[in-house]
Parts: sequence; C-alpha cells; structure tokens
Amino acid sequence: MVLADELAKKQQSISVAEFFEKNKHMLGFDSPTRGIITTIKEAIDNSLDACEEAEILPDILVSVQKLGEGVFRVVVEDNGPGIIPEKIPNVFAKLLYGSRFHQIRQTRGQQGIGISAAVLHAQLTTGTSTLVISRVSVMMKAHKMTLTIKTETNEPEVISHEEIEWMHPHGTHVELVFKSTMQAKKKLLEYLKYTSIVNPHARFRIEIDDEFFTLDRVSNDVPPCPISIKPHPYGIELGVLKRMTAASDLPLKEFLIKNFSKIGEKIALEIGATARLNPIVRVNTIQLEQLNHLLDAMQTVKIPAPPASQCLSPITEKLIVKGMEKEFQLDFIKARTRPSNVFDGNSFIVEAAIGYGGKLPPEGNAMILRFANRVPLLYQQGACAITSTIANINWKNYGVSQQNLPMGPILILVHVAATNVPFTSESKDAIASIPKIEREITLVLQELGRDLKLFLNRRNKNKLLDDRARAICTVLPLIAKKIGEILELPPPNTSLIEGKIMRQVVLKKKSTGGKISIRVDNYTMNDQEVSVYDISSDPARNATISPDFVMEMEGEYTKVWKRTLPAGENFEVSYTGVGGGIVDMQGVAENMRVVVDVDV
Amino acid sequence: MVLADELAKKQQSISVAEFFEKNKHMLGFDSPTRGIITTIKEAIDNSLDACEEAEILPDILVSVQKLGEGVFRVVVEDNGPGIIPEKIPNVFAKLLYGSRFHQIRQTRGQQGIGISAAVLHAQLTTGTSTLVISRVSVMMKAHKMTLTIKTETNEPEVISHEEIEWMHPHGTHVELVFKSTMQAKKKLLEYLKYTSIVNPHARFRIEIDDEFFTLDRVSNDVPPCPISIKPHPYGIELGVLKRMTAASDLPLKEFLIKNFSKIGEKIALEIGATARLNPIVRVNTIQLEQLNHLLDAMQTVKIPAPPASQCLSPITEKLIVKGMEKEFQLDFIKARTRPSNVFDGNSFIVEAAIGYGGKLPPEGNAMILRFANRVPLLYQQGACAITSTIANINWKNYGVSQQNLPMGPILILVHVAATNVPFTSESKDAIASIPKIEREITLVLQELGRDLKLFLNRRNKNKLLDDRARAICTVLPLIAKKIGEILELPPPNTSLIEGKIMRQVVLKKKSTGGKISIRVDNYTMNDQEVSVYDISSDPARNATISPDFVMEMEGEYTKVWKRTLPAGENFEVSYTGVGGGIVDMQGVAENMRVVVDVDV
Repeated sequence: MVLADELAKKQQSISVAEFFEKNKHMLGFDSPTRGIITTIKEAIDNSLDACEEAEILPDILVSVQKLGEGVFRVVVEDNGPGIIPEKIPNVFAKLLYGSRFHQIRQTRGQQGIGISAAVLHAQLTTGTSTLVISRVSVMMKAHKMTLTIKTETNEPEVISHEEIEWMHPHGTHVELVFKSTMQAKKKLLEYLKYTSIVNPHARFRIEIDDEFFTLDRVSNDVPPCPISIKPHPYGIELGVLKRMTAASDLPLKEFLIKNFSKIGEKIALEIGATARLNPIVRVNTIQLEQLNHLLDAMQTVKIPAPPASQCLSPITEKLIVKGMEKEFQLDFIKARTRPSNVFDGNSFIVEAAIGYGGKLPPEGNAMILRFANRVPLLYQQGACAITSTIANINWKNYGVSQQNLPMGPILILVHVAATNVPFTSESKDAIASIPKIEREITLVLQELGRDLKLFLNRRNKNKLLDDRARAICTVLPLIAKKIGEILELPPPNTSLIEGKIMRQVVLKKKSTGGKISIRVDNYTMNDQEVSVYDISSDPARNATISPDFVMEMEGEYTKVWKRTLPAGENFEVSYTGVGGGIVDMQGVAENMRVVVDVDV
Repeated sequence: MVLADELAKKQQSISVAEFFEKNKHMLGFDSPTRGIITTIKEAIDNSLDACEEAEILPDILVSVQKLGEGVFRVVVEDNGPGIIPEKIPNVFAKLLYGSRFHQIRQTRGQQGIGISAAVLHAQLTTGTSTLVISRVSVMMKAHKMTLTIKTETNEPEVISHEEIEWMHPHGTHVELVFKSTMQAKKKLLEYLKYTSIVNPHARFRIEIDDEFFTLDRVSNDVPPCPISIKPHPYGIELGVLKRMTAASDLPLKEFLIKNFSKIGEKIALEIGATARLNPIVRVNTIQLEQLNHLLDAMQTVKIPAPPASQCLSPITEKLIVKGMEKEFQLDFIKARTRPSNVFDGNSFIVEAAIGYGGKLPPEGNAMILRFANRVPLLYQQGACAITSTIANINWKNYGVSQQNLPMGPILILVHVAATNVPFTSESKDAIASIPKIEREITLVLQELGRDLKLFLNRRNKNKLLDDRARAICTVLPLIAKKIGEILELPPPNTSLIEGKIMRQVVLKKKSTGGKISIRVDNYTMNDQEVSVYDISSDPARNATISPDFVMEMEGEYTKVWKRTLPAGENFEVSYTGVGGGIVDMQGVAENMRVVVDVDV
C-alpha cells in the first residue's frame, strides 16, 4: 500500500460545530470572562433586530445569576414577534442558520452563528441544554423547548418540547447555563449602557445577582427597519454572476433589471451594448468569456449608488451628541454623519464624534468608542480598522498630542453602518482593514479634528487671558491693603473687580444698617442661568423684586430668585432686615463664581 | 398569518462556502494584493506537512505568471506523497475537510480550510476551476482533475478527470487562476525567505514572471514528523467528555487509559476514587452530575504534562540564531526555547530571539518576526498576542527606549509551536490573547532582555571610553604641532599614540635613508589575525622576517606577512630598499585600524 493510502484514512469532513468547538475563541468565547458578555450580546442583537422587523418598541430583560462556583445562568427575554416552533431548533441550535445572512440591509446579526455559538458554549462547558420559550401570538400557546447541538453534524437535537401558558402575548426567552466568571461586570455594564445609548427606543431591565436596574427608553419612535435591497452591479464578482446566470433563463435585459439594484431599462440596454451582448439572449447560454465582458460592462457603465437611505440606519449626529454629552459632560462635542459610500457593492455610512474635556481622564490615550450597525464593539481594539485609522491620522495638526493614538482628555466615537460589516472574525469584535471604509473614517475625523482645533485654540486663548487676569488679581488685594494702610482705613474689598477681570459671576450681599442688597454681576462671555439662595431670619417681604420662591422653616426664610442673566448684565434686589445668614447661588460652574458677603 | 410566519420564510441554512464567500477577508482574501500570498502560503503549508509525514526532503516549485490585466496563475508543485484520486475533490474543493484537524500534534495546516478557500477565491474572481495533478507512486499513473466548489452546498464538483503520464514519481501540483495584483511582491519574497529559514530542509524553486531563483536547502535532515497524541485530561471540557462517554461502553478505568494522554492504571484509579466512581462502571451509564465530578477529578489529580517532545517541533535556538545572523549580520543575537507548557490541554512551546544592531534600521519601532508552527505570520501584527505581549513588557528595564513597542535597531522573533495554535481567525494571521501563551512569551523575552541589557551596558561602557579617547586624540595633533613650532621641527606623528589610546591596530611603515621598517601594534583587547600587504619596487630579500608570500608583477613586488597578534603584542620586520609604494593590512575591522606611512 502506498503512503498516500495511509494518509487518506485520516482525511475527513469537519462539521462547522466541531470547527468552532475547537476554535471557540473565534466566536468570542476565548476566556470564561467573555462568555457572559458574548452570550448576552448575541441574544440582544437578535432581540433588537426582531423587534425592528416587527416594529415593536423593544422591552428586554437581561438576567445573570450565579448558580455555583464559576457557573452562571443567563436569561435574555424580549417582547419581539417570537419564532414559530418549527424554526426554533435551527435558529438556536445550528451554526450557520438565519434570516439575515442573505439579505442586503443593515442588521446587527448577519452571520447566522451568534446565538447557536452560545448554545454550543453552554453545552461544552456544563453539558447542559439551552431552554427556549417563544410565543408568536396571543392566539397561540407558547412553545418551550430544550435544545443542544449535535457537534459532529451541526444539527439541532430537541431534548424536550411542550406547549405552555405564558404571561407574555409574544416574545422569546432564552436561558443558558455555562461556566464563566463575573470579572468583566464593568465591561458588561458598559456594553449595556452604550447599547442603550444607540438604541434609545429600547428598554432594558437588568438583574445581576441581587442588583436590579433599568435603562429606560428615551424615545418612543421605533426606528424604521432597514429595507433589504438587491445587490449592486458594482459589487458583483464573476463567480456570483456565473451562478446567477446559470440559474436563470431570463433574457439579459430582464435578468439585469430583476436581479440588481439601480438597473432600469436604459442602463440594462447600455450594459448589453457595452458587453456586445444581445439584450434578448437567455443568460444561461452566455459563456464564461462573454460573462467576463458582461461583468466589465456592469462595472464600467455609470450606475447610481445603491439606495443607502433605505437599507442603512445611522445613529444620527443628534443622538450621538446627546448620548455622549449625558455620559461625559464634555466641554466640546461634535458629531458628523458622512454621506453613504460603497465597498465591494456593500453600502455603508461612517459616523463619528469627537469630545473633549468634561469627565474624560485628562491623561493617557484617547478614549475610543467603536460601533458597528448600532452594536458597541468591546474587544480587540488593537485589531480594528477604526483604531489603526485613528492612529494613522496626524493629530498634532489638530493641536492634540499623539503617541500612536491621540492622547489627553479626548473621546473618539466611530460608527460603521453597513449592509455587510466586514468583521475580522466571527466574534464580530473588530472591523477588517477595507481601504474605502478607512478613507471615510479618516475624512470624517479630519473634519471633526478641524472643529476640535478651533475649540482648543479658543480655549488656549481664553486660558492666556485667564493667566494674565490671575496675575493681576494676585497683586490687587496687596495694593488694596497698602492703600488701606496709607488711608488708615480697612482695605477695600476687591472681589468685585477681581470677578470682573476674571470674567466670573459675582454674587454680592451687602448689609448696611438694616438695608440689605443682593447683586449678581455676570462678567462671563455667556448667558448664565442663576438661582440665588438667601437664607436668613429676614422674610424680605418688601423686596424690590419678589423672590420666585420662599420657604419658612423654624424662623429661617429661604428666598430664591431665578434669573437668566445675559453676558455683562446684572440683577439687583434689596430689602430691609437684619441681614446675616447664608447667601449662595446655583447654576454657575465652580470655577466661574465669586460669592461675597459683606456686613458693614 | 402572524408576523413570525412571515419572518420564518427568510430563515434558512447557510453553507460554509457561502459564508466564506461573503466573508472572504476572514480567510486572508481581504484585498487582491493578499490573494497571491495567501494562496501560496496555504499550498506550501500543505506541501511541507505532507512531506514531513512522508519523511521526504521537500522540493517545492512556486510559480506566479501574469496572464492578463490583474489576472494571475499561481502554481505550487511538490514532491510529496501525493493524494489518492478518490480524495482529491474533497481535499481541494470542500471547506472544512482535512486530515490534521482531528489530530493533536504540531502541523502547519490545522483547519481543513486553507487550500479550498483559495479554490473558492479563484472561482469567485475569475469563474475558473482549479487544476490538480497528483501521483502517489511510480506504479500508478498521475490523476489530473479540474475542480470547483458548489457554493450553495460546499461540495466539490469535478469538471474533468483523466489519468496522465507525469514526469514526477510522486507529488502534487495545484494551479489556480485568479484576480490579484503583484503589489505585495516584496512581502511574498519575505514570506518565502522566512519560510525557507525555518524549514532549512526544504528547497524552493521560485518563478515570478521572468525571474527565476532558488532558496536552497541547507540541511538534509528531514525533521521528525510530530506524532499525534491523545487529549490531555487537563484540557477536556464537560461537553466533550459527555460525548466521549456516551459513545463508549468501556469500564471507567479502561476508558480513561485508552482515551487520554498520560493516564496509566494508577492515575485512572486515583481519578475514579476522587470522583467517587467505581472504576468498573460502564462510562455510558454515568449521569451528568457524576460526569461533573469525574471532570473535576481529572483536573485535580496530579497528571504529568502531555508529551510535548513527540508532538511539537520547535525551530531550535541554533537554527534561529543562524537564520537571523545570516539575514541581518547582527551585533548581538540570542535565542531561547522555553520548556513546553499547556493551555486548554494543548501543548505548546514558545521560542524567541532578540537581535541588535547590524543591518537593522537604527530608528523606528523594533522589527517583529512572528512564527506559528514554523509558518511566518505576515499580516495583522497589531491584532496578535505576540505584539501586545511585547508592548506590555517594560523595555526601559533593559536599556531599550519604548513607545508602545520597543524602538531602535532591535529585532524580536517569537515562535509559538502548538498542537492547536489559537488563531484569531481562519486567515491564520494573528494569535489570540491566551494568558498562558502570553506568559510564556513574556518570560522568554524577559530572559533575553536581560542578556540584551548586559550587551548594551558593555557597549555603552566601551562607547564612553571611546568618547574620552576621541577627545584626547582631537587635541593631541594640535599639541604636537605646537611643540613642532617651538622646537622648529616638523610636528611629531601622533598616530601611534592615538592608535594606542583608541585601542586600535596600528600599521606603520617607515622609510629612513634606504632602511624600511614595518611594524604592527595590536592595541585592541582581542587577538587580531592580520595580513600585512607591502607593495613596492623593493623585493625585500633581506627582510628580517621573510614574507609568507611574494609576487612580482611588472617590477612591483607584493609582499604579504600573515600573523595572529595577541592583544597588546606587536610584529616588526625591516629590510633595505627605496621605500614608497602602498602598505595596507587586512583582517582588522574598518573602525579599528590605523595605517601610517612615513617617508623621512
């Protein structure tokens, strides 16, 4: 027997489940720490996609319970349209099965792997099956199944199946038990928070062990479900065209119009003419060489871009700014959504935002937030085209220091929305290096970089003025003191002048022989919404301007005046009384306020 | 009809070929540039693995020919054991099919995807089938087939099949035509060069368009083929154990001994006792809860590490040093092979080397060379655990500057050899972040870092001495000139003193009125092998030491004296003659020599 016979005995098929059981890190199950996050992420992706398709406001329960040492139960339950019982086994317990792989539109799930990978992970680490409950309508009962995947064949195995009563009219509940750790709890909460920010129409109720909280919806509008489009001629490869033509006996013109996006009668005829093919030739009779000409023609004839507005669903500039501002209270934030573009026939849109200051850490690398199809990307930042593109921009041009990544209190958010996001692996952690996408990211960040530079320049100029003012304010009290000595008087109070020089808001309460005056001067460059609190034994009934609010408590009167003070303006009120007590204001930043209380 | 019914219509299976046709970047076909390299790499992986299994010295032909604008034909032909005709279609035209996936040993191919992915890429970009010729023995004819993959089913389609005469007694020839560019030619040559370095027993003949060259073998020893081992109990997961026990009716003790590595009678009984299971219980009767106890016992009982020496094949320190030295002529190079270790039951060994100076670029990031199972990794450096581990080491401890990566004329080579390399994706570009592997890389680089530090310290000390000497030597001639002026004499020649201070080798020829003397002083700290050349019209027949070699040519006599001069020693010879001509020496580095020719 020849050696090749010997070797041949070892050659055999590998089921896709076996493959991923061995290479589970490719699915995002590389460490016990990630198991919980990856599972929840896959389930939530499915819930949000399904709710979007059914135009339902998503209401999602996420529960993580520790069952024993290193063993956790994860439940994700939604109010989506449900899954018909015949399909439940394949949807949950067969890798490479799904509804979104063959559609050309923006979806969170796109591979038909995610949730089944979690089922595989559960049975691999604990030997347990996954529990699914799903109900499609109030008219029908819910179906409850327990499932595993037969690894050798990648086929679902239904362990049990029963019809049950269920409190929800429709929705899906999935429950998995696997080995994991909760070391990544912070990352899980981050994932949920960012998911909630970019899905403002969804409500998440979260139970982690004995903690309960809700991330509420801030919008009641279901975003329109992206509509599936036909493939664009520019993105077709010869092998695919060959397969499509072989399977059709339509005449060329009709074939083109029926199967592709943005081809009408005129363009179809032009393609035919360019390829020197008769528009009535049956496409399954076209030979390989002519197919090559046809493909060339399809890619040279001018055809409008695919209809991105239908099939894509960007987060939008407004929503990005709102979410980031809420989270980080930034000194500067700007977002931009680029026009749609195409790579390999896939429509995509890049959105980005740059934030500065606020609650961002002042030192170290910029904070990078990556999103793909409205899903936050949490792992493999170093492997992602978003990161490498950021590193390849010269941030020094925009007044930002850089060591590979930009540094300082900077936040960079990038969202890539595409009909097919080119992830580097099945775990969907990082976007592959596609030049067209990288170019769009570069362009949008350069645009935003210019805005950031303007802000930083202005801020630096302001800082210079501040420094000068500060120097003057240091000597002012000394001069005042000297003058006081010369004139043998108490030194004059310089706070007001200082406030003016420092461009601050100055609140001054002065009590002189039973006459009380309160004055607020806005020396800043902006409008200020000020609430003045004056707490004393004076009821101030004869105040020149009545307080907006008065409260008495044990003989102490809290009087509140609330005003919007334009830059440079002031507000003054006086009354008679004994003075004393506490005076303060709210609504003005800590470093912009001076409060003076003078009792002469 | 409920909405779920509507949605269900779109749910369907996705064939693995469809999946990778859409996600071809996961296979390393993300850009036309990469197509050629990925294809050649996959074919060579197979050839080298097959030759190793058959204990054949590999002789591999790689040919890349441009057929037309952007269309290339790639041929890889080996002298391996060949593939029997029944298996050819599955091996080349079915994703997830192969002989090495289920084996536990170090192989280049491990996924059963590579070469079929190239076939898929060829048919996708040019619509052409792939040509395979294979012959398993001189006793049989060769089989020639053309193949494609049916994408919808991931099954091979044999377009043609004939038996042919073939000049080679055994081997395999694969020929693919696809769209690509040759922009990455430099990277291709790099890949071939490094592959040849770590496979010194292989010969590569390379034809790229009209260039031909050979990377010859430098060793005639076929490295021993790693032997497949059984899984180690420490790496088993519950799901796998459940499957194994369900499929066996052996008693527990025999089951453990037969199916696992390093379990003998004694350990098998200990595992049984720890799990409170009777060693004669039939394993297919063990329930899930008891299986959990069994697994715990298998992972707590002390069991020797898997037999790494059989199943792994490291490059070895000697070979790494040899290859790197040849390539970069380094000033410093040191390699280390760590003891074998285990992650998730997979044996692995980390080897590394650090080089310094020589032909390495003096500026910028360190050069990082990554290898996995003797295959160079060329892409996605940023996504690789090797890179992140290097970045996480504090190189300043070892006298190396660092900005994320270490910087300067430094080369860092890391080879991970494993029974299952945890690649981040099917393209096998980067190693996933597995803590145990990262720890081994850290340890070996820290060891090497300490050696590098010693070298750099010594070099810096030498440099300090040199700087001082240089300062003295700058003023010496000035002093000499001044003295000459005072004494009204020509300034004394200070070269000799300078040579002494600078620790150099000084050759001095002096002609004084017909008396010629030649003297060599070795002021360096090392032995020097010096050849002195004296070319003049003097035959030097009365030389105090006869030349080792004399040659006359047109009245000019070349006299050569060859000596090994210990540090601090000198050599002197004199003769009578007219002097003049040329004097020089060989064998001394350029920056360590001073030649003085004085004619008084």
